[in-house]
Order: sequence, then C-alpha cells, then structure tokens
Amino acid sequence: MPTADDIKATIATYVETFGPDKERWVALFTDDATMEDPVGSEIRKGREEIAALWDFGHSLAEDVQLELGGPICVAADEAAFPLSIVSRTGTTTIRINAIDVMTFADDARITSQRAFWRMEDAQVEQG
Amino acid sequence: MPTADDIKATIATYVETFGPDKERWVALFTDDATMEDPVGSEIRKGREEIAALWDFGHSLAEDVQLELGGPICVAADEAAFPLSIVSRTGTTTIRINAIDVMTFADDARITSQRAFWRMEDAQVEQG
Repeated sequence: MPTADDIKATIATYVETFGPDKERWVALFTDDATMEDPVGSEIRKGREEIAALWDFGHSLAEDVQLELGGPICVAADEAAFPLSIVSRTGTTTIRINAIDVMTFADDARITSQRAFWRMEDAQVEQG
Repeated sequence: MPTADDIKATIATYVETFGPDKERWVALFTDDATMEDPVGSEIRKGREEIAALWDFGHSLAEDVQLELGGPICVAADEAAFPLSIVSRTGTTTIRINAIDVMTFADDARITSQRAFWRMEDAQVEQG
C-alpha cells in the first residue's frame, strides 16, 4: 500500500502539472487507470483516453489550471481533496469548485479518479 | 433523481444534526444505506448499524460536532464535501479534517456514505 506522504506527493504533482505539463500529468496514472470527470459522465479508461480528456479540457480556454482548495484527506489507499478548476480566456475567468476522489497503486500512481463538480456551479469573473 | 438543492439540504441537516439529534440524523439514511467511516474500515449496513456507529463516535468525547469545511460539490445523484469532525472533552478539542462522499435516493435520503480521514491527521487543541 502506498504511504499517505506518497499519495499526497502524487496529488500535489497532479494539481501543479495539469496546466503546464501534459506528459508529466498523464504519467501520474497507471496504464489502465479510469477517469470519471465529472461524476455521472462517461468513464474513460487508459492513458490515451485520459490524455484526450486533457486535450478537450484545455481546448475550451486559453489557460486552464488546478488549484488545491483545502486539506488532502487520505484513507487507506484512497484520497479525496477539494480543488478549483480555473479557466481563463482573455479577461474572463471561470472558476469551478470540485472535489476529486482517487485510488492509488502501490507505487502511488493513480488507478482511478472521480471528479465531483457541475457546470451549473461555475463562477464567472471579468477583468 | 434528486435535485442538487435537495441533496445540499440533506447534507446541511446531516452536518447540523450530528451533534444534537441522533434520531433526525439517522432518519436521513435509507433503510439499507451503507456507511464506510473511515474509508478502509468495515462497511456498516442499515440504520441500526449506522446508529451504533453514531453511539460509538459520541462515546469517545463529551461533545462531538461536524462543521462544513467548504463548498458541497454535487454531480449527478452523488456529492462530496469537506468537513471537520470536532470532539471536545474538558478543555481538549480534537479536530479532524475529512471529506464525505455520498450517494442519494430519489427522495434525497443518503444511500451510501464514505468518509475520508485518518486519526493520524487529528489536530489537538488545549484550552
């Protein structure tokens, strides 16, 4: 089982690299990892489909970043944490509060991700 | 499917009544609801076992309350939210940051709860 510190390190890298470094971000997942983002949508499986979801997310705005929104809560080989998805295009910023829930392999790579958020809860900021 | 507002109302009542009102708190769950608290521990099933877990939690301190710790993130008929478990005995307060993940029935009662926290992350305050 991965340690809590290893899990927290993976999550820190997941948050930091989502904006600037697709290769490093996708490498955080195991080969057959699943992603349900948002919860209730089609489940993607494997790094190729996860990379395609990254491409789609980044195609919607000039810049998309994740921001950690509170403590990372680890339990056994799983974890949940609050975050914001922050998309900027021109002078418009769209912020969505989310919670990600993940399971991890022994090497602390991500085996599954489920993201809790709704477009209806997006906050739009101008300027 | 329950509305997001109905889900948020159930969660607000779950947080508010955990301290003072066991009957009302247990009534938030469906008859066959499951509870995994914390994640990785034995899964309790049904209101009787859930009520027993409430009794156990409240037996550990003079007063135990929940505090909502950030935005409730709804997705489809599920939700996740940050909270703190705050236990007081004499002048000692133990605070544990957690994230609860829940599924809901059509009437917005809770069908499953999974709580992400570890005793190792408890913060002890004196006075």
